[in-house]
Amino acid sequence: MTAPPGDRLARAALSRIVEPGDEHAGRALRRHGPAGLLGLLRAPEGAGPDTFPGTGPRRVEGWRHRARTAEPERDLDHVGRLGGRFLVPGDPEWPRQLDDLDDTRPLGLWVRGPADLRGWALRSVAVVGARACTPYGAHTAAALAAGLAERGWVVVSGAAFGVDGAAHRGALGSGGATVAVLACGVDVPYPRGHAGLIGRIAEQGLVVGELPPGAHPTRGRFVLRNRVIAALTRGTVVVEAAYRSGSLVTARVAARLGRHTMGVPGPVTSGLSAGVHELLRGEATLVTDAAEVVELVGAVGQLAPPRRGPVLPRDLLAPGTARVLEALPGRSPAALSEIAVRAGAHPDHTLAKLYELHSLGFVERCGDDWQLTNTRGEGSNTRHGGT
Amino acid sequence: MTAPPGDRLARAALSRIVEPGDEHAGRALRRHGPAGLLGLLRAPEGAGPDTFPGTGPRRVEGWRHRARTAEPERDLDHVGRLGGRFLVPGDPEWPRQLDDLDDTRPLGLWVRGPADLRGWALRSVAVVGARACTPYGAHTAAALAAGLAERGWVVVSGAAFGVDGAAHRGALGSGGATVAVLACGVDVPYPRGHAGLIGRIAEQGLVVGELPPGAHPTRGRFVLRNRVIAALTRGTVVVEAAYRSGSLVTARVAARLGRHTMGVPGPVTSGLSAGVHELLRGEATLVTDAAEVVELVGAVGQLAPPRRGPVLPRDLLAPGTARVLEALPGRSPAALSEIAVRAGAHPDHTLAKLYELHSLGFVERCGDDWQLTNTRGEGSNTRHGGT
Repeated sequence: MTAPPGDRLARAALSRIVEPGDEHAGRALRRHGPAGLLGLLRAPEGAGPDTFPGTGPRRVEGWRHRARTAEPERDLDHVGRLGGRFLVPGDPEWPRQLDDLDDTRPLGLWVRGPADLRGWALRSVAVVGARACTPYGAHTAAALAAGLAERGWVVVSGAAFGVDGAAHRGALGSGGATVAVLACGVDVPYPRGHAGLIGRIAEQGLVVGELPPGAHPTRGRFVLRNRVIAALTRGTVVVEAAYRSGSLVTARVAARLGRHTMGVPGPVTSGLSAGVHELLRGEATLVTDAAEVVELVGAVGQLAPPRRGPVLPRDLLAPGTARVLEALPGRSPAALSEIAVRAGAHPDHTLAKLYELHSLGFVERCGDDWQLTNTRGEGSNTRHGGT
Repeated sequence: MTAPPGDRLARAALSRIVEPGDEHAGRALRRHGPAGLLGLLRAPEGAGPDTFPGTGPRRVEGWRHRARTAEPERDLDHVGRLGGRFLVPGDPEWPRQLDDLDDTRPLGLWVRGPADLRGWALRSVAVVGARACTPYGAHTAAALAAGLAERGWVVVSGAAFGVDGAAHRGALGSGGATVAVLACGVDVPYPRGHAGLIGRIAEQGLVVGELPPGAHPTRGRFVLRNRVIAALTRGTVVVEAAYRSGSLVTARVAARLGRHTMGVPGPVTSGLSAGVHELLRGEATLVTDAAEVVELVGAVGQLAPPRRGPVLPRDLLAPGTARVLEALPGRSPAALSEIAVRAGAHPDHTLAKLYELHSLGFVERCGDDWQLTNTRGEGSNTRHGGT
């Protein structure tokens, strides 16, 4: 079920060679496979003029230039020492909804944090917006994220100042799950002022990015990062955005990919709500709180199994995840700390597993506590590992 | 083209006998005609049990009771002395879009003010909302109304405190046209605190109501008044409304009648925007300024002839209206005061006629000035009285 090791190494190398969202590279990858493409770029004699049809020689020259210096083993080792990993298509943890991006699908994802990205992404919502937000925007983003977390939804954002930061903090503050998608290496705390926040997310949530360790953000990388946020989540909520704001890009990509696009309104006198209002005059849905967001993104049924991917029978769970499930009392809710003690695991790790179990339909949140999902009836087969 | 005199007198009497929006009365009117219905109610021997099928005896008794004391000649005379009139279906000034209300169509409309109601209503938008609005709501309503007035649109509202008052004032303040639809007699300044405003509207705009002179508002009358506002206009904009606010009734009636429904968003933290947001999560369109409202309600073509009613050739205009049209210079815009002097008319009267001419496509507003519509091409036949 895991991708072949050569694939992972080649994709790690390519993540340093190719810019995120490069469709030319995507096409070449589809044609030659990761190892094949890397081999072509590293060949001393160079590639023939027809190797990459439709792709300009300057672009290919750039790839060949960077292919000379890529050291994927070192990158994998470096991220591994930070407790991270490099996910590629075919991995059980690979979030398959990214396949909707076709040739702009990330080559792979560098990930830090204790949770299962695939499980989390199945029940996730993006909360994005202006960097220079107003106190109203910050308040609304935090309240929305806290409400989503309380309802067992994972909050995805971009770790930027303003709305992004407020959303991550709102989720963390209510003991919830959050994913930061960076436009740089997952070892690069950007923006600097959010180093503490990003560090905390890497412990309690997930820090994710397409770029190899040490890579710095650029304007283009910010814009292309947004497509990953849009594709990863069930829907995108924009909280404050001026005209032509980057978060509107995220919303439009989300709409194009068939995800829900939502916006939080504000005063018409505020330029920072103008972009959101423009969105709401199009196809986006107006939302005023987390309940309305969940009503929309969870429309397939709040406790129904996630649309994508199999619902695992209980005995197919990874041992660490199964241990947390076993630690829940049979009939009553329990606090995170209690479950962590019973599972013999760190609370951050336990929380990550609880969200994973939540997205698989095993557990649900109940105020600040967690409990087993009511499984009388049709769900019981799954819980007891039947069929 | 005018309704027969007996009709007018009977409807004036019935406006004192029957509550606004009474469907039973509407059905009886359809069956017996105004004079016939009045005769039945006034007959000393009373109506037989099958005269009003489906209508309870208590309701009929109430009608008969009030029929005894109705003095329509006195009411008509009283309103006439205030410079007013009583419009009935069939009058050239009757706004035919009210026919969409079927059996709840007003029996007639008591009107004060110099303008032509029919002409004005063709280019009108309702701006309604909370009585206890916030400064944000008042500001937004006034700015919206001023913007609509500047674009040659007539602002219709209910003369209540809060949003309604701000809308009327915004229109008046920018030298625009406004219509107050009252839930009481047009000689009753309600609310008291708006006596000055209502008086000013009766001079510069139109004060309209279904109820006979002296009638006071009741809760039910307020609610039913809203259907007239909705039916009279091309669309309804709600500016601040709490859940279950009366202005949401107006918006829903507007939607049911196929008019545009619009809402101005506000902070999600404000209870006074909650009703608007609920509306915007349904079928209403989010609008942030007058341009967006006009884009919607004027979608049939900003300068196109109004959808309903004939485009009058110039020589069919009423003499007072034609005189104002003649007072406009041939090629350049002119100020209201200048046009009034040249037409030999009071500025309020002149403005009323200019809006009427505007709705007929003869003139357009240009900043604070007025000018003849550019009529090269197909419009010229109409201007020169051809065909």
